[in-house]
Amino acid sequence: MTSILNQHEDYQQAQDAYGFPLIIKQLLNRAKIASTNQTISYADKVTYTYAEFFKRVNRLANVLKTIGLQAGDVVAVMDWDSHRYLEAYFAVPMSGMILQTVNVRLAEDKVLYTINHAKPKALLLNAEFEPMAKNYRQDAPSIEKVVWLDDTQFDKTKLDDTKLDNTKYSEYEPRTEQVSMPDYVEGEYEALLAAASDAFDFPDFDENTIATTFYTSGTTGDPKGVFFTHRQIVLQTLASTLASALNAEGQGARYNDVYMPMTPLFHVHAWCWPYGATMIGLKQVYPGRYLAPRLVDLIEQHKVTLSHGVPAILQMLLKEMAARGRKFDGLKLLLGGSKLNEGLAKAAIESGIEFMSGFGMSESCPVLSRAVFDDKTDSMETPEQLNYRCLSGSPIMLVSMEIWDENGKPQPMDGKSTGELVIRAPWLTQSYFKNSDAGNELWQGGWMHTQDIASISSSGTLSITDRLKDVIKSGGEWISSLEVETIFSFHPSVADVAVIGIPDERWGERPLALVVLKPDYVDTKAADILALGHQAVEKGYLPKYGVPNEIKFLSEMPKTSVGKLDKKRMRMMCAEKLI
Amino acid sequence: MTSILNQHEDYQQAQDAYGFPLIIKQLLNRAKIASTNQTISYADKVTYTYAEFFKRVNRLANVLKTIGLQAGDVVAVMDWDSHRYLEAYFAVPMSGMILQTVNVRLAEDKVLYTINHAKPKALLLNAEFEPMAKNYRQDAPSIEKVVWLDDTQFDKTKLDDTKLDNTKYSEYEPRTEQVSMPDYVEGEYEALLAAASDAFDFPDFDENTIATTFYTSGTTGDPKGVFFTHRQIVLQTLASTLASALNAEGQGARYNDVYMPMTPLFHVHAWCWPYGATMIGLKQVYPGRYLAPRLVDLIEQHKVTLSHGVPAILQMLLKEMAARGRKFDGLKLLLGGSKLNEGLAKAAIESGIEFMSGFGMSESCPVLSRAVFDDKTDSMETPEQLNYRCLSGSPIMLVSMEIWDENGKPQPMDGKSTGELVIRAPWLTQSYFKNSDAGNELWQGGWMHTQDIASISSSGTLSITDRLKDVIKSGGEWISSLEVETIFSFHPSVADVAVIGIPDERWGERPLALVVLKPDYVDTKAADILALGHQAVEKGYLPKYGVPNEIKFLSEMPKTSVGKLDKKRMRMMCAEKLI
Repeated sequence: MTSILNQHEDYQQAQDAYGFPLIIKQLLNRAKIASTNQTISYADKVTYTYAEFFKRVNRLANVLKTIGLQAGDVVAVMDWDSHRYLEAYFAVPMSGMILQTVNVRLAEDKVLYTINHAKPKALLLNAEFEPMAKNYRQDAPSIEKVVWLDDTQFDKTKLDDTKLDNTKYSEYEPRTEQVSMPDYVEGEYEALLAAASDAFDFPDFDENTIATTFYTSGTTGDPKGVFFTHRQIVLQTLASTLASALNAEGQGARYNDVYMPMTPLFHVHAWCWPYGATMIGLKQVYPGRYLAPRLVDLIEQHKVTLSHGVPAILQMLLKEMAARGRKFDGLKLLLGGSKLNEGLAKAAIESGIEFMSGFGMSESCPVLSRAVFDDKTDSMETPEQLNYRCLSGSPIMLVSMEIWDENGKPQPMDGKSTGELVIRAPWLTQSYFKNSDAGNELWQGGWMHTQDIASISSSGTLSITDRLKDVIKSGGEWISSLEVETIFSFHPSVADVAVIGIPDERWGERPLALVVLKPDYVDTKAADILALGHQAVEKGYLPKYGVPNEIKFLSEMPKTSVGKLDKKRMRMMCAEKLI
Repeated sequence: MTSILNQHEDYQQAQDAYGFPLIIKQLLNRAKIASTNQTISYADKVTYTYAEFFKRVNRLANVLKTIGLQAGDVVAVMDWDSHRYLEAYFAVPMSGMILQTVNVRLAEDKVLYTINHAKPKALLLNAEFEPMAKNYRQDAPSIEKVVWLDDTQFDKTKLDDTKLDNTKYSEYEPRTEQVSMPDYVEGEYEALLAAASDAFDFPDFDENTIATTFYTSGTTGDPKGVFFTHRQIVLQTLASTLASALNAEGQGARYNDVYMPMTPLFHVHAWCWPYGATMIGLKQVYPGRYLAPRLVDLIEQHKVTLSHGVPAILQMLLKEMAARGRKFDGLKLLLGGSKLNEGLAKAAIESGIEFMSGFGMSESCPVLSRAVFDDKTDSMETPEQLNYRCLSGSPIMLVSMEIWDENGKPQPMDGKSTGELVIRAPWLTQSYFKNSDAGNELWQGGWMHTQDIASISSSGTLSITDRLKDVIKSGGEWISSLEVETIFSFHPSVADVAVIGIPDERWGERPLALVVLKPDYVDTKAADILALGHQAVEKGYLPKYGVPNEIKFLSEMPKTSVGKLDKKRMRMMCAEKLI
């Protein structure tokens, strides 16, 4: 441990003074004293206390050591959101190893790409992903050790997920028949843990040691690896939980919350909330595979009060709860990933969900901003509040933001001036893994470039108006596709909407709206929806050139693996006359 | 800036990646974007916006530079709690200088001792302390530059503090006549700021640079200097505000709180709340000198919702509000410094103050634990809740605690086993300044020794039962003086009570109770109060040997400069037959 004092002749450290590195094991300090009787559940399969959890983290560390892994080795996980995943969140980095959270929702060849790029030495493999991983002995030669995760031992009703599957969050069709353990694995997770000692002395080490790595699922080229240190995760966890907790009653995180992730654990550490919930000592529920009926069952059964997700998850929850004819009981839902439209926002509030928007990205660990709810917000009229709730909140503690024009000149924070959002925070990936060109581009000028076009109001509220790459420039003027999408989202027939720029001889580009209609509204005419755009022009909400010339109807909206609008694919489909 | 990545061949930092040191200037990042229109007030004298505050911090940095100060220099402040003090909290350490917060409530020779020990090069001196500092040119030769702080320019009613002074928190009698600026000063604070540029580019530097120093006001020997780095202050600020914010409505810190310190800014950074309040962007009020009528005036005028203080301040507030025949409107008061007795706790709740106990010390920056309020606490019956509220809460995030017996062996956390409380946290002074013997003793065995005897319950609630030095050992058994004090505090006649050990031939030591009676109860007999002790024995709350043989009545309780029971002095007075 190096001294935590700067070299100043007078200020000397005592011989045995403990320098306290910001490493992930320290996140457990409070819970180890205050929350030993609190519980952690894996769906309806497993429930145990934190006291047991701490022992199992020790057991897992002993298993990793026994199968021959060492500090610096990469350990990949392919699992649904489980108690095991939470255990790996702690045991792997606390052992000085690097946790690779594999995005199992990518196309299979992309999954393999990320594995061969990160080169894990071990893989924790849920049996349900065995069809995807069965050839990894040949195709992913870095993997020397596989640990088998098998839910059938817990699940009295066995592999009945398909019955539940009326709304699913993933295209992947997992194995549904029971499968015996392959001979190449080290053993089954629960059996290995049971055989290991529940004592492990986690060492102190440099807080700048890499703790995690995962891959951005961008719409272009190969996935890019980001990576985070222990220090970065500890700081993100502190600042992000604080920004939430300061919110008014009904919206802020509290000591008595029941937490369940609805952003998968492979996705940017589930926004670091599994770390935060464990640090605080909350009751926790891990839902397994994201199937709408199960998520809503667990929310109702465990009285879940705090979760997070992307708008696509919110949509899924609302549909399922509507089918049940009931409402949520004030579930606090931290939203991010893509911009919420006001139609969905309204439906969420009506269904008893308190949602708090925020902004973040894979490169930022992720949370950078979070909505503030106080007496001012409480006293807003509904339309103003809806609008506010669809913006992206204000910077959380320690986060610095600027809006840069094309020449890197900071723009005023007046709610009008737009430009690229650039950021500084203590938890930003320091490059892309083995891709220094992309890393240097990300960090050009000493600020991280989000590639998002945004404005910031005088009270600090962030509004993302576009992706840099999705910006529409018509007759020399920028058009915010998100603004147009928001307007059209209010039409009762619109289930989903995307606005993209298409080449235009006269104007350079013109906006085109792509719309998926709700099942009961398939006869809706384009003119009816466009009328909302013309109304918005009359009211001064939109410049005249912002109204698309045309609307095209799709049966399904092209999206990325994490549920974001895939505008690159849409533009490509337009170019190829597929739309 | 050194790399924030550990040496791992694969994980390289991008060329321009910003490493983000945890330095105090980063605490301003959020407020600079989100809170520019929020206000900061100095009593009824000054109100300005955060936008103005940021400029004034820049101006102060320019003043410090202009008068010849450099990074590493110590800048001492002798002022009441003012906007100027808050500006120095930021501008001094952000300039790489060390802020010495002088405890102006110590005896004058002790104040001089701390100055000659820390050797400040500059002093920001409130005119009211000029009588104390007038000979510093001879007596404190390290001080080369003095900046004059003069309230008379703001105060339309001029120096009328004496009129308010029916309850005061300090023995120091400040200058009451107006005084012209001495010729040895560099200039008056406001005039110097007005003449300086409002632009200053604060540099980045090592987060382990010393930011602050101050002196513990122990009851024995010379005051000891503690010191804290930028990193330590940032981390304490994050964790301490988080622990408060997670509490239930009416108890937790919120974005819409109005903050006013009632722990002086010279005392352990006012528990880092001026840093926290500014980081969050709260409306802030600085009360100047602590005079009960002014504190209550400001609480009522500014609708202060969040403050902190020691039990002595609480007592002062209750008395003043009772005199006004009104109540507080749910003021959230973070308590610490010494243990609260249940009598005072009850009175506080009845007067509309929501208080949250906690534990900390000068050596710990200070907050280590804070009471948790959730649905469990809400549903407690009054006596149970009163008892809970007088305990010291549970460890805040990142804090590790153990209870050690005399041989350094950790004891179980069962709410019964007692021993010395030892701690680890990222914000503990790494030694005593120029006193390595005391520093090494503080850190014996790699844990900081609090010198407090405590137990911790299975749900993590900390109960301080005694100071190590105040422990009473009677017939081989330990007696908790705090337990006995709590019992006697319930007698209606008791204004203040202390229990100390006095030598006894037969038992080694026996407890003696010292009591100050309320004015209306001066005829109370010792036997009436002792009867509460015997009742407690019958109910099993106290062992029989815990009841003192005797009660002695005092007109005033010996206390330290920060309002704690001065048991060392009491024992000395007993030995010298002065009691």
